[in-house]
Amino acid sequence: MNIGLDMMGGDFAPLEAVKGIQLFMSDTVANVNIFCIGDEALVQPLIKEYNVSSPNLHFIHAPEVIGYHEHPTKALKEKQQSSIAIGFHLLATGKLDALISAGNTGAMLVGAMFTIKAIEGISRPTIATIMPKINGSTGVLLDVGLNADCKPELLNQFALLGSLYAECILGIQKPSVGLINVGEEEGKGNILAQATYPLLKENNKIRFVGNIEGRDFFSDKADVMVCDGFTGNVVLKMAESIYDMAQQRGIETDSFFSRFHYENYGGTPVLGVAKPVIIGHGISSAKAFKNMIHVATKMIATNICSKMADSFKA
Amino acid sequence: MNIGLDMMGGDFAPLEAVKGIQLFMSDTVANVNIFCIGDEALVQPLIKEYNVSSPNLHFIHAPEVIGYHEHPTKALKEKQQSSIAIGFHLLATGKLDALISAGNTGAMLVGAMFTIKAIEGISRPTIATIMPKINGSTGVLLDVGLNADCKPELLNQFALLGSLYAECILGIQKPSVGLINVGEEEGKGNILAQATYPLLKENNKIRFVGNIEGRDFFSDKADVMVCDGFTGNVVLKMAESIYDMAQQRGIETDSFFSRFHYENYGGTPVLGVAKPVIIGHGISSAKAFKNMIHVATKMIATNICSKMADSFKA
Repeated sequence: MNIGLDMMGGDFAPLEAVKGIQLFMSDTVANVNIFCIGDEALVQPLIKEYNVSSPNLHFIHAPEVIGYHEHPTKALKEKQQSSIAIGFHLLATGKLDALISAGNTGAMLVGAMFTIKAIEGISRPTIATIMPKINGSTGVLLDVGLNADCKPELLNQFALLGSLYAECILGIQKPSVGLINVGEEEGKGNILAQATYPLLKENNKIRFVGNIEGRDFFSDKADVMVCDGFTGNVVLKMAESIYDMAQQRGIETDSFFSRFHYENYGGTPVLGVAKPVIIGHGISSAKAFKNMIHVATKMIATNICSKMADSFKA
Repeated sequence: MNIGLDMMGGDFAPLEAVKGIQLFMSDTVANVNIFCIGDEALVQPLIKEYNVSSPNLHFIHAPEVIGYHEHPTKALKEKQQSSIAIGFHLLATGKLDALISAGNTGAMLVGAMFTIKAIEGISRPTIATIMPKINGSTGVLLDVGLNADCKPELLNQFALLGSLYAECILGIQKPSVGLINVGEEEGKGNILAQATYPLLKENNKIRFVGNIEGRDFFSDKADVMVCDGFTGNVVLKMAESIYDMAQQRGIETDSFFSRFHYENYGGTPVLGVAKPVIIGHGISSAKAFKNMIHVATKMIATNICSKMADSFKA
């Protein structure tokens, strides 16, 4: 499998990406080719310095970089030689099987949606995050910010996309799906949640277990937790702040609270597009890069995008 | 001042209410009369057992109780001799200055809105919660569940109500107000947040500091944090679950994480109605009851309801 890694994305580019590859190589899976996309003059010396050379490592020179504050659509159009634009071109033409970047999030989303495109039958792609459960397992929360305003039908699609992610990537058989709401009983909630409940209940492609509340994110009530992107984004950032607070209080090494560190899940997969795309945090560390590469290998190996396409076939 | 306490509300009624009064009496403020509303046959023996008798303690017999699962409007109408119905009657007629109950939340809200009524100019009352800040201070989050779907004008009203609460009850001078959103920049957000931003910006009765994100609930970015009741309820319950998780991991005694325990803030004030009404958690402990009585004394002493009425005068 061929994984493209944007070496120019992230606050500590390209150093942390290089170190992330080094970490990945040390516990590596066979048959994984990594394509480093970026400014060779910056990347190659670091690869040498960190002794990461391998026959599975390849380089694709990209002389341009899309900055954090550039307008996504405009930048992608004008900077055809940027690492992100080249990455999407290679992904679209089949030379890559997955693309990872911790660069401009907007450009990554625009690239995913307009170069790779949504799977047929999917109205809007979504982004998901991993949630640590206090019993040691892991859940999926989606949407975490791509779709601030949602229709019930969209949440119903997220439920299926999240279920497939939980199954393929987290290895959860028949994952349970919960609708994030303000009460447990059917009929509770805002207009969106009230209208979504019956759709999830009737969806026989998922295992819907009913409403879940704010206290259930870290409990074992549901593996897949579905909400609009406004709520999900607030929850995601609040969950990340739990790690920061734990750190400030000196308890970040606790085996549960340590799991709130973003670098453990690495990045945010874009679900519902035809090929694996993973977006990293701007502050991505070596460990985050390593974990993003691992997620990409799983997405490719399990053929998750084809499974999504099959699930959404009429 | 005269504070009415529903002795029959809460999972551990009337014991924890009695113990709460005992705690309150031990660090008490002068001139506070507490009116115990409930079944005298159940309450009086406990008052004796716990040695809580005082000239400031009074009893009002209420032979009926509204259960947790009763329909609020129906129960209030049919059970005129219930502790909640009697409490609202006394509050409405001026015999009480504040009412506290850990009983049926719906009945408390219906009573607050239809017996006490909203202050003129306020479209919908709101419920607020206290948030511990990592720097040791305290913030207010609202709405936390009364209004699942909101219009921008409503959030603008919540901002002012929350500011007055922060000023009067938390003692924060010119509290800062933040709009909960998915990004910092103006223009970010769902339709509601986008439309609310300019209203808050133009509201010269509050000190608006812009958007805040999920990571800012416990930071010093904003004293008053405004959102719709769906988002706020999810955040409130998630914050409460942080305490539960800390407890499971044995770090609940941490001086910061311990502040996430609901009993520290005691209860949820109903803001925007003409008199102080405080709703407690079903699981309210003695400490929670004590703290609710303290909040009630502050609401009465600072005349917060009159201040709200003045602020909303055209």
